[in-house]
Amino acid sequence: MNIQQLMRELREESDSKIVLLVADGLGGLPEEPGGKTELESARTPNLDACVREGVSGLSIPVLPGITPGSGPGHLGLFGYDPLQYRIGRGILEALGINFPVGERDVAVRGNFCTVDDAGRITDRRAGRPATERCVAMCRRLQEIHISGVEIYVEPVREHRFVLVLRGDGLGDAVNDTDPQQVGARPLEAVGSDPVSAKTARLVNQFVAGAARMLHDQAPTNMVTLRGFARYPKIETMQEVYGLRSAAIAVYPMYKGLARLVGMKIADAGATLGDQMETLRTLWNDFDFFFLHYKYTDSTGEDGNFAAKVEMIEKLDGELPKVRALEPDVLIVTGDHSTPSKLRSHSWHPVPVLLWSKTCRPDAVVEFGETYCLRGGLGQFEAKHLMPLAMAHAGRLGKYGA
Amino acid sequence: MNIQQLMRELREESDSKIVLLVADGLGGLPEEPGGKTELESARTPNLDACVREGVSGLSIPVLPGITPGSGPGHLGLFGYDPLQYRIGRGILEALGINFPVGERDVAVRGNFCTVDDAGRITDRRAGRPATERCVAMCRRLQEIHISGVEIYVEPVREHRFVLVLRGDGLGDAVNDTDPQQVGARPLEAVGSDPVSAKTARLVNQFVAGAARMLHDQAPTNMVTLRGFARYPKIETMQEVYGLRSAAIAVYPMYKGLARLVGMKIADAGATLGDQMETLRTLWNDFDFFFLHYKYTDSTGEDGNFAAKVEMIEKLDGELPKVRALEPDVLIVTGDHSTPSKLRSHSWHPVPVLLWSKTCRPDAVVEFGETYCLRGGLGQFEAKHLMPLAMAHAGRLGKYGA
Repeated sequence: MNIQQLMRELREESDSKIVLLVADGLGGLPEEPGGKTELESARTPNLDACVREGVSGLSIPVLPGITPGSGPGHLGLFGYDPLQYRIGRGILEALGINFPVGERDVAVRGNFCTVDDAGRITDRRAGRPATERCVAMCRRLQEIHISGVEIYVEPVREHRFVLVLRGDGLGDAVNDTDPQQVGARPLEAVGSDPVSAKTARLVNQFVAGAARMLHDQAPTNMVTLRGFARYPKIETMQEVYGLRSAAIAVYPMYKGLARLVGMKIADAGATLGDQMETLRTLWNDFDFFFLHYKYTDSTGEDGNFAAKVEMIEKLDGELPKVRALEPDVLIVTGDHSTPSKLRSHSWHPVPVLLWSKTCRPDAVVEFGETYCLRGGLGQFEAKHLMPLAMAHAGRLGKYGA
Repeated sequence: MNIQQLMRELREESDSKIVLLVADGLGGLPEEPGGKTELESARTPNLDACVREGVSGLSIPVLPGITPGSGPGHLGLFGYDPLQYRIGRGILEALGINFPVGERDVAVRGNFCTVDDAGRITDRRAGRPATERCVAMCRRLQEIHISGVEIYVEPVREHRFVLVLRGDGLGDAVNDTDPQQVGARPLEAVGSDPVSAKTARLVNQFVAGAARMLHDQAPTNMVTLRGFARYPKIETMQEVYGLRSAAIAVYPMYKGLARLVGMKIADAGATLGDQMETLRTLWNDFDFFFLHYKYTDSTGEDGNFAAKVEMIEKLDGELPKVRALEPDVLIVTGDHSTPSKLRSHSWHPVPVLLWSKTCRPDAVVEFGETYCLRGGLGQFEAKHLMPLAMAHAGRLGKYGA
């Protein structure tokens, strides 16, 4: 029995409210041996107060040693085993540009490239065109019509776009058409099962049409495709937990991930202050609130330790606005670590604090990686966080008599 | 998805080097209540320095409460779930005498025994003959030829030998022929599936031949067989992790276990100093080095607390030779605990230290069971150690986008 089945079986009605505040890439590393992490360096009186009253620990996003992308990182926090529920690259790319992918869709990442007269690739990124040119070329490709399928061609930036095929019985077991080297011709799409063969046939028609429409548009005179992905079948938060859930995120990718599990996507505004205002506005209409804060990750990816510290302090400053709404359960954590020292996502466990009136004290008085090691939640796979939230929210009945 | 699949999918090329130093049976217990363990008692300045810079924790070899043999203990450390990958007794016995078992082999443990004129067992161990006699009797049995199969009869010691059948389509679902009591006749071998029935038929021919050849050799005038085991199918370290792996072990059993997962078996010499010299010699030709140190286990099995302390200190003294090679990841742990107090393997979690430049500090400053309880790795199943090593070695890409 997986966690979703258990939740469906045990969940109970309640008026309680749960807030899951995800500081993307929260976990870090010291810059120098013997130093402190970003979170440990930051002045965080409000987070520390929560930790003193609540319980803390460290979340392992997937498994020890495994560095997650944003997709698996968030699925785990929403309670879905990221090794069981996989989101393909094409779908993630579509979510990232806020394209409303749905159940009949196969999405794939596209590149504009340059080919010579013999059709051989001379530049896999078409000289990195300006995004305006990408937009114009996508508009052109949008004119391609293929019977039996709806086609959407959406610009991302520079040479990158997303192609979405919408129709019935489309598989995604299709090879990349990008040969990954110059001097070679784009590959033909081939499906490795009957439904994917259908997708491949449609895709090859699309590519033939694109070659015709772009032939005089060098350097953007051809396309390659990578990462075919069908829309994943995931039970919604409503179905699993009985929670009316709202996502208050600024960036499209995180809105998209929340949409995958059936959350209502709020109009969040652009700043953390706006997000807090949105939270207040929606407070009476939902049970579960996913707040996504991006800047702890982006400063980490920039390798900017001081800026990440500042972003954590800024988040801490807004926390009283959440507390003022008196949630029954407040969780602050990240979807993964992004140590400034590594300038990338990492596998290190992520600090977690869970505040509610039913926490057992754990003697941790400050929020930080080293302190959380002694926390009452211990180290646990991220997928176990939602059942803990549900329990502390009084929303889970007893298992067995 | 199991860990092996995940590693195949995520692994990346790198020049980094990983050293896994296994101090067999490392974990211990205090002799007296309130006392220290062997590791805590030992003076280990070099291990302590590693722990201060690295991260520590406790490894659970199989599952809580489960005491592993050497086979499962090492498979776990190599990243293979010991509950999924099982090595049968016959194969382990063959590995222990350095017999080069291969993919077409079924191995089984044999005992010389004594039977009376009616064929009933009067001594299950044939009066524990001298090993020379065992060798002579095995040479005699080696003369048995059975069409369709190669047969190897290899002495172990006293009454014990190993029988290996080499051929195609041999199963190992065959009962022990040892009736486990005197007064009974050896049992006929019966296979419980078609391939095992073939093995049983060949084995019964072998036993009939042995009875004829030994009939005038009392007390070693008959044989019994136990623990039929086929060579296990295990992906190699190269296939799973993309690591060129070398084993630097002195004892045959550990060389054999390393050979099972495709490691190159080095000529290690006889002392820890020799092993260090071998490590240095092989340094440029491999990515992963498994160093096996036996004496922490054997002194534990002897119940000799002081000697185990001494063996740990000796290991600590050689550690600078490993550090001098500048591995990217250095792990020191055991395959299980062997507390001198219990004079045997035990289920207690095993201290682990992992040193690399990407460790998050955990405030542990000394290497020992109690200190490791507060370590950043927490307590984890041994099978998760290799993914951690791969991550710290910069050899794993991101899971999902």
